[in-house]
Amino acid sequence: AKTPVKKMNFSNRGMTLEDDINASNDYYLANGIAVVHKKPTPVQIVDVHYPKRSAAVIKEAYFKQTSTTDYNGIYKGRYIDFEAKETQNPSSFPLKNFHTHQIEHMQAVMVQGAIAFVILRFTATEEIYLMKAEDLINYWDRMMSGGRKSIAKSEVEACSSSILLGFQPRIDYIKIIDQLYASYF
Amino acid sequence: AKTPVKKMNFSNRGMTLEDDINASNDYYLANGIAVVHKKPTPVQIVDVHYPKRSAAVIKEAYFKQTSTTDYNGIYKGRYIDFEAKETQNPSSFPLKNFHTHQIEHMQAVMVQGAIAFVILRFTATEEIYLMKAEDLINYWDRMMSGGRKSIAKSEVEACSSSILLGFQPRIDYIKIIDQLYASYF
Ligand SMILES: [Mg+2]
Ligand SMILES: [Mg+2]
Repeated sequence: AKTPVKKMNFSNRGMTLEDDINASNDYYLANGIAVVHKKPTPVQIVDVHYPKRSAAVIKEAYFKQTSTTDYNGIYKGRYIDFEAKETQNPSSFPLKNFHTHQIEHMQAVMVQGAIAFVILRFTATEEIYLMKAEDLINYWDRMMSGGRKSIAKSEVEACSSSILLGFQPRIDYIKIIDQLYASYF
Repeated sequence: AKTPVKKMNFSNRGMTLEDDINASNDYYLANGIAVVHKKPTPVQIVDVHYPKRSAAVIKEAYFKQTSTTDYNGIYKGRYIDFEAKETQNPSSFPLKNFHTHQIEHMQAVMVQGAIAFVILRFTATEEIYLMKAEDLINYWDRMMSGGRKSIAKSEVEACSSSILLGFQPRIDYIKIIDQLYASYF
């Protein structure tokens, strides 16, 4: 039996945003601007078959929860680290899109001096924002102290940088990093 | 039918070295020293089942070749990137342990100012060495120009730093980074 919600999650969630970011990373790599990769989806492999004269086939495996963010890499000597998330909610960004492990990971890399942020996309309006991890963590802490479980759209707008969709690269987050972290370079 | 060589590759290759490095990374993380993670094995997922009331099961998937190294992270603000490999050959380290994509990745991150290296283990003698990516690439280029397809043990010894197995962390490669890249910090 199939669970439609989970199926949709697997096949659609984040696809467009991820594709755009992956294409942007390809552009940065090909032009020697930055080296950033999406980490593979973590999978717990249980059973593998080894047919003669053909590739090994994984016959049983399960999705594991990731303990880090999805993207990391290097730009001008600096370690950069981010997560990309979409919401269909037009008026706020639900914090359930993030896991405790990801927040802890962002805090850990920030202590080491990382450039850490999230790329948020409101699918209804196709707006994309870059929010520093420190701001995300403030809203996360507000939730943990009993506050609202989302970031109001107006709050996102107030503390984040808007990214307009471009041609090449599609999502030019490096341009925003140059502005936000100018003192780092 | 099973192919014993492939099976051994999947279940044994690098296990001990990887386990030791993962444990060392756990130690660094828990003590706020560095944040380094092994990337998940890249898998091409073809078929997923969604049973009622239980986790999604991947029913068909294939191993993909990785386009990067296995480990990256941050130490004192610097991006670090490495690959770990073992050989059973007692007298030389075969370069077939590396893929062209991994060499290209190391070159790309070095251009961005990364601390890039490989951790090599000779299983016969349990010796572990840290070799800078620039040295590995020199030996790689020698092979590509028609030279030998491996690095002689004496060459490894001459250009690398020996790492003695410890208790906590098991493989203290950060100590070597402190020595080799002192000018970076
Ligand atoms: Mg994700
Ligand atoms: Mg590997």
